[in-house]
Amino acid sequence: MPATPPKSSETQPAPLKLRRVAIDTYRENVAYLHRDCAIYRAEGFQALSKVEVRANGRRILASLNVVDDGCIVAVDELGLSEDAFALLGVADGHPASISQAEPPASIPALHRKIAGERLTREDFRGIVRDIAEHRYSKIELTAFVVACNQGELDREEVYFLSDAMAMVGRRLDWHEHPVVDKHCIGGIPGNRTSMLVVPIAAAHGMLCPKTSSRAITSPAGTADTMEVLANVEIPFARLEEIVREHRGCLAWGGTSDLSPADDVLISVERPLSIDSPGQMVASILSKKVAAGSTHLLLDIPVGPTAKVRSMPEAQRLRKLFEFVSGRMGLAIDVLISDGRQPVGNGIGPVLEARDVLQVLQNDPAAPQDLRQKSLRLAGRMLEFDPDVRGGDGYAIARDILDSGRALAKMHAIMQAQGLRSFDWRQPPLAPLSFEVCAPQDGVVIGIDNLQLARIARLAGAPKVQGAGVDLLHKLGAAVSQGQPLYRVYAAYAADLEFARQACLRSNGFTLGRAEELAPLFVEC
Amino acid sequence: MPATPPKSSETQPAPLKLRRVAIDTYRENVAYLHRDCAIYRAEGFQALSKVEVRANGRRILASLNVVDDGCIVAVDELGLSEDAFALLGVADGHPASISQAEPPASIPALHRKIAGERLTREDFRGIVRDIAEHRYSKIELTAFVVACNQGELDREEVYFLSDAMAMVGRRLDWHEHPVVDKHCIGGIPGNRTSMLVVPIAAAHGMLCPKTSSRAITSPAGTADTMEVLANVEIPFARLEEIVREHRGCLAWGGTSDLSPADDVLISVERPLSIDSPGQMVASILSKKVAAGSTHLLLDIPVGPTAKVRSMPEAQRLRKLFEFVSGRMGLAIDVLISDGRQPVGNGIGPVLEARDVLQVLQNDPAAPQDLRQKSLRLAGRMLEFDPDVRGGDGYAIARDILDSGRALAKMHAIMQAQGLRSFDWRQPPLAPLSFEVCAPQDGVVIGIDNLQLARIARLAGAPKVQGAGVDLLHKLGAAVSQGQPLYRVYAAYAADLEFARQACLRSNGFTLGRAEELAPLFVEC
Repeated sequence: MPATPPKSSETQPAPLKLRRVAIDTYRENVAYLHRDCAIYRAEGFQALSKVEVRANGRRILASLNVVDDGCIVAVDELGLSEDAFALLGVADGHPASISQAEPPASIPALHRKIAGERLTREDFRGIVRDIAEHRYSKIELTAFVVACNQGELDREEVYFLSDAMAMVGRRLDWHEHPVVDKHCIGGIPGNRTSMLVVPIAAAHGMLCPKTSSRAITSPAGTADTMEVLANVEIPFARLEEIVREHRGCLAWGGTSDLSPADDVLISVERPLSIDSPGQMVASILSKKVAAGSTHLLLDIPVGPTAKVRSMPEAQRLRKLFEFVSGRMGLAIDVLISDGRQPVGNGIGPVLEARDVLQVLQNDPAAPQDLRQKSLRLAGRMLEFDPDVRGGDGYAIARDILDSGRALAKMHAIMQAQGLRSFDWRQPPLAPLSFEVCAPQDGVVIGIDNLQLARIARLAGAPKVQGAGVDLLHKLGAAVSQGQPLYRVYAAYAADLEFARQACLRSNGFTLGRAEELAPLFVEC
Repeated sequence: MPATPPKSSETQPAPLKLRRVAIDTYRENVAYLHRDCAIYRAEGFQALSKVEVRANGRRILASLNVVDDGCIVAVDELGLSEDAFALLGVADGHPASISQAEPPASIPALHRKIAGERLTREDFRGIVRDIAEHRYSKIELTAFVVACNQGELDREEVYFLSDAMAMVGRRLDWHEHPVVDKHCIGGIPGNRTSMLVVPIAAAHGMLCPKTSSRAITSPAGTADTMEVLANVEIPFARLEEIVREHRGCLAWGGTSDLSPADDVLISVERPLSIDSPGQMVASILSKKVAAGSTHLLLDIPVGPTAKVRSMPEAQRLRKLFEFVSGRMGLAIDVLISDGRQPVGNGIGPVLEARDVLQVLQNDPAAPQDLRQKSLRLAGRMLEFDPDVRGGDGYAIARDILDSGRALAKMHAIMQAQGLRSFDWRQPPLAPLSFEVCAPQDGVVIGIDNLQLARIARLAGAPKVQGAGVDLLHKLGAAVSQGQPLYRVYAAYAADLEFARQACLRSNGFTLGRAEELAPLFVEC
């Protein structure tokens, strides 16, 4: 998040004293100025205009909120929200000046996109640079996201956007080839395949520096689940050592280093639930390229409540990923998988960690869908190795898992990152729980990914590690009336109640006759 | 801004104490909760999610900001920004409860619009209701505005939107016919024709209850300029008396009563500088219909730096206004006028008030362009009177002006609203000034409306009533090198300096040869 030096020729009105205002405005810089502040009155700032704040040889842009309470900011002070204050890197009371901001240089390009025009590589570079430097307001960000979504970027534009996003952040270089990664476009609860694929690939000797995100709207991200087993917040220098020694890691990727513009865009995409193909491709590929990956295995689950709901849609998305990856010099292998239901039994950090360890331990009660999917993905990943014959990957992966070498590798990685105590036979589940039971006899013919994620989330996951949903039956199972379908765990009575109300609205399970079971779109 | 009663069956967590947080968030409801607040921790609110605040039998939606400073809100308090606090109508310390908000019911329709679909009348009603009730976040508002802009609403949709916007607010009924109004789509500095057209029409006996806006991004709105001469903030009951007695008024229309959704939409349209035809039509017509007008005279200025830049564009806009007005039962007469330069000499409240009074006084030095345009508009307005023959309006209007009856009517209206002392021969201009001079000999062949508005605004208008720009030459004038083109007035040294720097970047005047003068698009 760079702060550019001020131009020397500009007017410098009398300085104000900076004050950190302890309000978390979620990645929007906000400046607070007292209504009776002499500078506010003299400058006649326009409502909602951005202001430029200068201090310590840096300058940042912020939205202006006017304050009438001297306890928040005094008339000679300039308040800044937490993020904004941090960007200037000074102490409370430091002198600062403020003026109306010039609009970001890329605003004309934004307006052309709103008007439905095609943008050039230079346009995207300008927009992405301004976004990464926090020069866009939330309103401008939303306008960009919606304009790109509605007009549908063409595939060249998606490449320009991805490339621009990869260029503005930090770029890693592992000085080795291949550097492999896997990624799922998301939307399927459970589905912790990375925690199986990485140890298998690393045990095979491939360089697999996997960094993951924490959950934003889902009940757990890979980083949240891994955190049950080991430390995931690791300084980059240490992470590099771990990867050199163990050929892999499973760490939290931080929020903004690798593709800072993506991080800012997400702040409006998430609340809008907008996830257009172009933006998804740019978000994922910019981060992979910036992270130094040379090969990417991409998982696109398809199902009636998955992000991608039909095979033709999955194929279009696959081709877009392939086109843009190709232009960016990243080798990609796309797998279209079964996204009709959660993968594994647990939803929530502790429950998912239990599933992963059960598979690594080759426990006969381990969820077989998680094992099978992970082996298929790992097999395809191993085939990035030029020495592995096409088609041999799966068998090699299975051998690494069955022999205990994957478990040993996982333990080595956990040790290196900082082991946490966890007994998969007695997982530390949240103390409160209730069961959701079948209202009639029947076969499970549908499980709603979205509703189960919502229930797990309301129950407290991922914040409460032991909260979530434990599925007792999956698609195709025959159940009798009154038999429990799943168990919900929560730490607080209020959370339990929220989850219970959500279950009453819809428990997410559809029972019917076996022949009504939704067909699998594809073998994966 | 209605607050709906809470449903009886919902969970009621332990109450918090309400606290007014004196931060002006410009029409976005913001709730401030301490990070260590028990309810915040237990509920696991999602970043950027909306919360529902219940108190005093009402409920409102707000965006959540997390606070780490007990001086802003304590752990047992719930802070609300000024607007949000006012909506609940309670005192500091009142008990309130908070929970995660259900998304607004119209969000699926918003997503269909983002995806480029055509919406129904019911869709627009749902969206506009949610917007008027402050249920949309800034991000959702922006998404709606951009999606409507990029996809271009068809004319039926513009009607649905206008009608929905007129329906959600207060509606006036004057129990008389016709009720006339005039409106300019804006963008031309000066141009204070309403302050001449209203007294002329009222002197003729037409009911002309004109309410106007204050400037948001321009250097003066009609309400700002009228405020130099008389009080413009008048309770509705008194306004009604004035209109009954004098047949007209020139008052401030308030911000939100008549079309509350428009007021909210403007909060994102302005900073984005988005003003699509559909949104412009819906904004203007919804307010006119809600204000009880039966006849509307609409002014569309055309020019290279006006809002509308070509004759075909003006004609398309005219037809859209005519179609939607017709569907809403509002008679409309559209005038396409010369928008190549400011109308009148002054830009800024005091300078414009001077121009208006000069015209009303029939002063020979009065700006003739303002007089002529006002007479043409007033003439067309008078022809809404069934007793006036088509073509006779202009002569009647001129007679009313020349005879002093318009001046007398204006004085009566000013007296009734609350006269302020003002001498147009010695207008109270701001004390600091500089002149911008011709850099060479030549004829004025272009005046940039946008740049002159910007300069007047930077000089302090409309906040500083006496600040602004006084034009000494208009299009077609021959000037010599060093001769002043206009004078800039400001009250503060910093403002003067900002305006001077803007003039240095571009003074807004183009000099050339007489034959290069941009042609007038239309006779108005």
